[in-house]
Amino acid sequence: MRTVAIVGATGAVGAEFGRVLERRRFPADRYVLLASRRSAGTSVEWLGRRETVRELTAELLRGVDLALFSAGASISREYAPAAAAAGTLVVDNSSAFRMDSGVPLVVPEVNPQAADAHRGIIANPNCSTIIMAVPLWPLHRANRVRRVVVSTYQAVSGAGARAMEELRTQTADVLAGRPPRREVFAHPCAFNVFSHNSAVGPDGLNLEETKLVAETRRIFDDPEFAVAPTCMRVPVLRAHLENLTIEFSRPIDEHAVREILAAAPGVCVVDDRAANHFPMPIEASGRDEVLVGRIRSDPTIPERRGIQLTCCGDQLLKGAALNAVQIAELVLARR
Amino acid sequence: MRTVAIVGATGAVGAEFGRVLERRRFPADRYVLLASRRSAGTSVEWLGRRETVRELTAELLRGVDLALFSAGASISREYAPAAAAAGTLVVDNSSAFRMDSGVPLVVPEVNPQAADAHRGIIANPNCSTIIMAVPLWPLHRANRVRRVVVSTYQAVSGAGARAMEELRTQTADVLAGRPPRREVFAHPCAFNVFSHNSAVGPDGLNLEETKLVAETRRIFDDPEFAVAPTCMRVPVLRAHLENLTIEFSRPIDEHAVREILAAAPGVCVVDDRAANHFPMPIEASGRDEVLVGRIRSDPTIPERRGIQLTCCGDQLLKGAALNAVQIAELVLARR
Repeated sequence: MRTVAIVGATGAVGAEFGRVLERRRFPADRYVLLASRRSAGTSVEWLGRRETVRELTAELLRGVDLALFSAGASISREYAPAAAAAGTLVVDNSSAFRMDSGVPLVVPEVNPQAADAHRGIIANPNCSTIIMAVPLWPLHRANRVRRVVVSTYQAVSGAGARAMEELRTQTADVLAGRPPRREVFAHPCAFNVFSHNSAVGPDGLNLEETKLVAETRRIFDDPEFAVAPTCMRVPVLRAHLENLTIEFSRPIDEHAVREILAAAPGVCVVDDRAANHFPMPIEASGRDEVLVGRIRSDPTIPERRGIQLTCCGDQLLKGAALNAVQIAELVLARR
Repeated sequence: MRTVAIVGATGAVGAEFGRVLERRRFPADRYVLLASRRSAGTSVEWLGRRETVRELTAELLRGVDLALFSAGASISREYAPAAAAAGTLVVDNSSAFRMDSGVPLVVPEVNPQAADAHRGIIANPNCSTIIMAVPLWPLHRANRVRRVVVSTYQAVSGAGARAMEELRTQTADVLAGRPPRREVFAHPCAFNVFSHNSAVGPDGLNLEETKLVAETRRIFDDPEFAVAPTCMRVPVLRAHLENLTIEFSRPIDEHAVREILAAAPGVCVVDDRAANHFPMPIEASGRDEVLVGRIRSDPTIPERRGIQLTCCGDQLLKGAALNAVQIAELVLARR
């Protein structure tokens, strides 16, 4: 890759792209840092240097070999198709193309082969979907999953850098006895929990839940895969936690689950009952792996076909920047 | 009731007892405020006056008509049986007698008749159990529940006033860039989520989860009632939120559920999809009712027998002090 463009370089995910690319020694000669007009001109830390972010234009994407987009769905819809048509490989972290049958939706640990069919754009799944898919897929391969009930405990970082700042500011406000100021979220996030801040459809599911169902089906290539989701925000900065209750097709015990997960790529089992040490956002933050623990049988599912577990992953890393970079690496490796 | 003793008057629940009794104009002539030796001598606000808390002794319980215990299971085990034998009605908020077949376990909205069989002690259920039982019971009566999957988002108040202070102190520490100090919880609670801080048994369930299963069965008088729980702590001060996925025996739709809950005692439906306004800890705090919302069909349960919903209740009120006072009122009314 000679030239790599970062679209949305001033955002929470944009900042992670730099750290992930540097840490993984991504083979790029040159980076072009781009953002919307609002953020253009900002200086950011990039691979150890201060760099000025330029305003995104179609011209600046010309000749770019790889573009990592994370600037919202409307920016992706406006700029990604033309860039892809001109020969740029686009890995898009927005929701713009995730349900487009002509665009692969890829978690490298799950469906790397799907990337081969790309026509210039590959979509990065939603954060809560990726974090569930990484541990669920090896289990599904070993013993077909019939149904998953999932409750999420989602960090505010999924709503961007301003949401992270809002959690900090609101928390300080509440501690000082001031009313919490709201800008990003309709409800206070400090010392609170609320149903995910996306629109609720006529079926009662919010958009985050709809994505979790539909994207998992696409990634697993199983249009009937049954997920019953509840997505919530919690006062956590950057890692999502998810409780899964899994009904398998055949009997399975917790030891088999632990063995499968211990050998699974991208997973780290954290399951120490004696020490009460299980996956936690503060420990998943900054880590590439999805932490998995609280693995136990669910005796309310008959025939020993039930397992409950908790997983937790960094929303900005495996949930966004890392998975996107892994997709680019995958395409490079398969060329 | 001439004389009412509060055992554990300096705790988080103790303070709520005063406010609940005053607000409900509980018919007491005199209050005796008691606590362990460690807290004796402390002055507390009680019905608008400063009162000094005395050290709990068996002598001070003599002649007391009603004793509300909330000072931990070992204090209850030591003092409650003798007090009950001497004619005091004990309502015990600890876990000491909850699974004792000679002690009724009561949620007044669910099984008030069970209180009649008391022999001096009535147990107040665990907070997460009460908050689930209040909305679940009227649904179970209308259409037998086969199984509930529940994920909790529990406030730190369940671990006492010191845990609430720890959340505030740790949060200020993290905001100031200091390492969070831990005293009550093994793991940091600021900007974090962790599996409930109770011991984990060989079945993989922690004690909070075991209580949620066993106590619900006792309260519902259904030894087979199937609950698959995951109990977590979140950085919230005093209200528990719980996501329920409910499998019924017969088809049910969300409108029927909403109607049943709108008419249910102790429940307030908060379910505004257009405004994305659903139950939240900051709104449940200080309220007597359990808030219920996010009511929707779960299409992954066959034959339209599935419903998902979220409930949220004040851990110190309906989860503790209020339910205990309601039990006392119930016994008075049925005398």
